[in-house]
Amino acid sequence: MLKSFIREDDGLSKDTRKEERKMYQKSISGILNPLKEAKIPVVVIVDGWDSSGKGHLINQLIDELDPRFWDVFVDEKKSPEASRYPFMYPYYKAMPENGKLLFMDSSYLSHIVMDDLSGNIDAKEKKQRIKSVNIYERQLKNNGYLIIKFFINISKDKQSKSQKALLSKKDSAFRVTKSDLFQNKHYEEFLDAYDDALEKTNTIPWHVLDGDNRKTIAYDAFKILYKELHTAITMGKYCAHPYEETFIMSDPLPRTSDADLSLSISEDEYWTELKRLQDSIHTLQGKMYRRRIPMLLCYEGWDAAGKGGNIRRVAKPFDPRSFRTIPISSPLPHEKNRLHLWRFWSYVPKDGHVTIFDRTWYGRVMVERIEGFCSEDDWKRAYNEINEFEKELTEWGAVVLKFWIQIDKDTQLARFTERQNTPEKMWKITDEDWRNRDKWDEYEIALNEMLEKTSTEFAPWHIIESNDKLYARIKTLRIIEAAMKKALERK
Amino acid sequence: MLKSFIREDDGLSKDTRKEERKMYQKSISGILNPLKEAKIPVVVIVDGWDSSGKGHLINQLIDELDPRFWDVFVDEKKSPEASRYPFMYPYYKAMPENGKLLFMDSSYLSHIVMDDLSGNIDAKEKKQRIKSVNIYERQLKNNGYLIIKFFINISKDKQSKSQKALLSKKDSAFRVTKSDLFQNKHYEEFLDAYDDALEKTNTIPWHVLDGDNRKTIAYDAFKILYKELHTAITMGKYCAHPYEETFIMSDPLPRTSDADLSLSISEDEYWTELKRLQDSIHTLQGKMYRRRIPMLLCYEGWDAAGKGGNIRRVAKPFDPRSFRTIPISSPLPHEKNRLHLWRFWSYVPKDGHVTIFDRTWYGRVMVERIEGFCSEDDWKRAYNEINEFEKELTEWGAVVLKFWIQIDKDTQLARFTERQNTPEKMWKITDEDWRNRDKWDEYEIALNEMLEKTSTEFAPWHIIESNDKLYARIKTLRIIEAAMKKALERK
Repeated sequence: MLKSFIREDDGLSKDTRKEERKMYQKSISGILNPLKEAKIPVVVIVDGWDSSGKGHLINQLIDELDPRFWDVFVDEKKSPEASRYPFMYPYYKAMPENGKLLFMDSSYLSHIVMDDLSGNIDAKEKKQRIKSVNIYERQLKNNGYLIIKFFINISKDKQSKSQKALLSKKDSAFRVTKSDLFQNKHYEEFLDAYDDALEKTNTIPWHVLDGDNRKTIAYDAFKILYKELHTAITMGKYCAHPYEETFIMSDPLPRTSDADLSLSISEDEYWTELKRLQDSIHTLQGKMYRRRIPMLLCYEGWDAAGKGGNIRRVAKPFDPRSFRTIPISSPLPHEKNRLHLWRFWSYVPKDGHVTIFDRTWYGRVMVERIEGFCSEDDWKRAYNEINEFEKELTEWGAVVLKFWIQIDKDTQLARFTERQNTPEKMWKITDEDWRNRDKWDEYEIALNEMLEKTSTEFAPWHIIESNDKLYARIKTLRIIEAAMKKALERK
Repeated sequence: MLKSFIREDDGLSKDTRKEERKMYQKSISGILNPLKEAKIPVVVIVDGWDSSGKGHLINQLIDELDPRFWDVFVDEKKSPEASRYPFMYPYYKAMPENGKLLFMDSSYLSHIVMDDLSGNIDAKEKKQRIKSVNIYERQLKNNGYLIIKFFINISKDKQSKSQKALLSKKDSAFRVTKSDLFQNKHYEEFLDAYDDALEKTNTIPWHVLDGDNRKTIAYDAFKILYKELHTAITMGKYCAHPYEETFIMSDPLPRTSDADLSLSISEDEYWTELKRLQDSIHTLQGKMYRRRIPMLLCYEGWDAAGKGGNIRRVAKPFDPRSFRTIPISSPLPHEKNRLHLWRFWSYVPKDGHVTIFDRTWYGRVMVERIEGFCSEDDWKRAYNEINEFEKELTEWGAVVLKFWIQIDKDTQLARFTERQNTPEKMWKITDEDWRNRDKWDEYEIALNEMLEKTSTEFAPWHIIESNDKLYARIKTLRIIEAAMKKALERK
């Protein structure tokens, strides 16, 4: 894409171009409020060679824009903190709200190319990252995000001149880093690498800008930006139909009808096993911490199934310094205004850390589906999006365990009644619980569809029979212990 | 406090203590929902000697608690990221929501003592930090936060034994750091330093726990925790009366009546000065970035006074990589549920960075006061809280500039009318703007009180006459240029 790149001559005079550029700039300002009303979020990537003027171009683009409508994200590659999360984590976290523009100053593209040529990643890891980028862009697009991608191309000579000019002045010399100089020295290799990476991430197309030509670059960018925004407004917010990748599912597929709810454990065995398992998990967690293996424990289940008590027993062996429990309730406005998985991405633990989710991203295909809090396309698309999310996590090295805490309807009724009759527990039972109970059959259908579509080989569902809560706790702890041992053998 | 510390014998038998501990633990579980309903947020600090079992105690305390009600904050001292923010920044950022408990694993206390004895800070900086801690705790308390402070005391011998026990096992050896060993080696000096720091941060009292005695420590902690929570529930959420420190105010104090709104500038002079000032500020910002001096530019003003256009001209010279504009609107639920200044603390720029606030924390004493969105005590207390906040920032090294963009009532009417008659600008004018206009006189009173009470020597208000928007922009840029020059001379 870069090797064959020549900017087509637009035949415009300097004055006409200036005139038109102003017009585009003004039109973009005027389009921001309609964009907000149409609830369309926009990601504008400005990537390109080092010292090609990315920051300067962003400055020009935002110059006239009301700051309420945009933000700038700077891809800081060198942060040691970032290296403790999945590669795409900062890009998910930076995702703008509906109706806002996010300008990315450099992006995953340069990040991958630089890591590749500095020998930080091998071919497999590179391929993996490219795939993650494709998923990211597709998920955003399918959820109504507009992605506009610029790449500023400059020649080796121009790059070298820019760097020399910056270095010659005391006030700007600090802007040229070693890695910038490295890139100019190995320009040809970078050219190959950029071309390859641009090609492979071109499912949403890159707009290559001519960085050698300072007179046309801003004009070209404004023109493209305006056209893309204008089209988006005209077409309205995009919402894709369900899309499904093929994943290998767990064998056998868990079904609630297979759960034997008569399973139980004696008190004696419970206390002995509880102690043994908690001690064992405590020791295993120390090892996982040092080997930097992260773990996500995800809880879903019927109301009053015993999630809370189960979580407390599971949480006990973990060091609070490397462990969190995240209770998930309905999304806040700023969460609702973003991709459904956004808040869950932001809760992903650091490597070596453990997060327990008390309810999860599966709310989308359960309560949100049943209560109509999202569209049919939204929840149908979610199965695949969730599988991709969990695949990203497991390929990063995380252990992902999903527990469905299962009880029967009679047991639920007994527990509801007990809560209602015990003053200290009364707050735990709400009208909503009773309303949900009325929809048991609908939930059962959604539940079995969820199990069928998301119990993958890499992140299978475990049904935890919980009519006997003690049995349920021990079963959960055993699954966790076994998974931790397996993870420690693997690496 | 530590040297004279002896745990009073409670005369309880082992069994009775165990019994009572269980009772306290259960009562704490039961109190969490009433706490939430009373909207009381709680900070539980567990500080103490290294290897004294802080993490273990927190684990015991949270063991039975529903995870929806609490979170753990670990004070990670060594993050290079943290060192680029004010000392108290992470503690403000970690602040819990109404009705939630935050357990702090180690705190500012140990942070200060360790930095002191490792020679990272001098006596002046230490004193400054202690003062910041006092302000933090008082502000939290005055805003209804309950703060419960534990310090685990252990003897030199016990500490040494704990460290040896940890080091002897492969699975736990990594938990003992160099700085832990350093502390044991210099135990006596740390004892002096801890005693001194505990004394000076005792305005909200520390509860010293006997870490040498593993049999009583959890019992004592549960008992204190329960009593404090119970008292808080009984008394209801605390809201302090206004409290005022003495600050040196700017001389002269700015008043809107002194503003000469006929001030204007010719177009020619405007364009020449605009270019000169933007170039100059661009260069100065490069210097400030390298010297790591942060800057906050805070905008308030009448509707249609020209804030937006002013901000755009001011923003232009800054590098988007080290600069952000934050538009402030009414707080989201999770922001409203915390100390008023919480979200503004979280927007404080890194050192060397610049943040423009499009509206600010002064909403508290303007719109929130007038519309009754907070209590009278709340907004009256805010003057002092804001002054303390800005003092923290300037003592950290930040440049804080506050602009009130001033127009007269006729000019506002003309601009409102123009917006209403121009299709692309129509969205900018809402019914709320007209309602605010009706309250002009009320706002004027609040405004002058704000200027009088918060135009301090370290963060004075600048009134920007903006009937002529061009004049206003140049005046603002000149003030910024001068302040940057002064900051660069100072350091």
